[in-house]
This record gives sequence, C-alpha cells and structure tokens, in this order.
Amino acid sequence: MDVKLINPFIDATFNVLETMASTKATAGKPYLKRDKTAQGDVTGIIGLTGETRGTISISFTKNSILPIVSKMFGEEMKELNDEIKDAVGEIANMISGQARQGLEEMGRSLKAAIPTVIMGPNHTITHVTNYPIIAIPFTTGNGAFTIEVCFEE
Amino acid sequence: MDVKLINPFIDATFNVLETMASTKATAGKPYLKRDKTAQGDVTGIIGLTGETRGTISISFTKNSILPIVSKMFGEEMKELNDEIKDAVGEIANMISGQARQGLEEMGRSLKAAIPTVIMGPNHTITHVTNYPIIAIPFTTGNGAFTIEVCFEE
Repeated sequence: MDVKLINPFIDATFNVLETMASTKATAGKPYLKRDKTAQGDVTGIIGLTGETRGTISISFTKNSILPIVSKMFGEEMKELNDEIKDAVGEIANMISGQARQGLEEMGRSLKAAIPTVIMGPNHTITHVTNYPIIAIPFTTGNGAFTIEVCFEE
Repeated sequence: MDVKLINPFIDATFNVLETMASTKATAGKPYLKRDKTAQGDVTGIIGLTGETRGTISISFTKNSILPIVSKMFGEEMKELNDEIKDAVGEIANMISGQARQGLEEMGRSLKAAIPTVIMGPNHTITHVTNYPIIAIPFTTGNGAFTIEVCFEE
C-alpha cells in the first residue's frame, strides 16, 4: 500500500476535529500493524469499495472522546452514551468523506458503505485481510486515538 | 427496504453454518430495529456499496459462537480468542458472499468491503443511517445470534 494514500486521512482528521470540536490533534508516526488488532472504548468503522476493497476505523479511548464531544456539543459529556455514538458516527463519516475527496484528487476513487459504531470497554478491532494495515496514532491534549486504514490494492 | 432482500441473508446463514460447522440454525421472525443497537460478544461487520450503500453485521454471544467454531475446527474452543476472530471473519465473509450472489440473481448488485471483527464482552453495534435496519434473530441448539441488514435504497 502506497503510504502517500495515508496523508488524506491524516489531513481529514486534523481538519474535522478542528472544525467540529475546536480540537487540535497531533499525529504520531504511522506504523504497520503486525497483530492486526486495535483497541478502544468506542470505534467508528467504514467499509470502502470501488477499484479496490478497503476499510477504515477510528478508535477512541473514553478519555479522548469525552472532551471532543463535549466541545462539539458545548456541554460536558461525562459518560459513553448514545450521543457519543452519534458523534463518533458523524466524525467517522466526515473523515471518510474528506479523505475520499483527497484520494479522488490523487486519482483513487472509492465509495463508502454505511458506517458502524461499536461501543464497549476495551473492545478489539480486527480487519480481516491479508494486506498490510496502516495505523496512525493521534493524541489530543486529553488522550489518544488511532486510525487504521487498509486497501487491498 | 424490500423484505424480500432479507431472504438471501437467511438462506446464506443456514447454508454457511450447515456446511462449515454442521450446525442447524433456526431463524426467528425478522423485525425492524427501533433502537438501532445490537449487542454481542463477537461481531463481524461488512460494509456494502454499489447501487446503494449498505451494511451487514452478525453478532454472536459467547455461548453461541464457541460450539460453532468448535465444530468448524474439530476441537473444543473454550474461550474467545484470535481463532474465534478469524472464524467469525470467515463466517461473515461467506454469508456476505452467498447473500450477495442471491441478491445479484434478484437484480441487485453490491460490492463488499473488507470485513471487520469486533470482540469485547457485551459491546453494542450501531449502524449510522436514517434508513430502517432489519434484524433477524437466529438460534442454534446452544445459543442465539443476530444478523442485521440495512440498505439505503
């Protein structure tokens, strides 16, 4: 997988969190997932198809998502509830949309499926593919989240 | 959503579990999800795109999946581990593949994204859409599982 294809996802993440939640995220160095398992307390997943199959997921810890959604809604969120699910669905949708627009400009056209949000303490996420999965670690002032991207190109 | 579109998923589920795991599943009456949340201990999710966006998920309780995978592998599985993840990914892939073949015969062509498997006790699954989500409850001799299907047609 061409690592240049990762950049639209990083740019979209910065932009969506800044615009929707006045949150500055910092990206760590992307790495190749070996164990194929991510962990989180709430995760948004979007399947991609088109010229190739793909998937992206964004997994937040409870500590990282509560302040983000608090800023989105302008009220303090204290627990993982249905509003957090909706917000993570919206964040995943917007990151996927902006990233796909960036990929389109690079000549790669992909369609997005209906997003799914998973909530449950410390669940694992496994993408079922033999192709490499790229993980991008992010931090905000409050905690960490991870985006995983895979294309079977 | 045309309820006839559900039948290929039911047929595929019977067939895949019978073929791969000598397991006879029984389908309950499909129902419209109101709260949009499923629960399970291990879930396979596959995004669909094409003429419309879609998603399918299959959520097993621990009690229902262990005997299925035990029969698939010919050895007793006692806990939810990486082998269970792989097996659920394979089951989801095969059900999706056979169901899409059935849909194709009904004139509906959809592509499947990379499947994702989520594991974690009693997690919730929420499909982010305003369209109806159809849930199909299944039972085996050992426990229950649920398939959810949505198309934005």
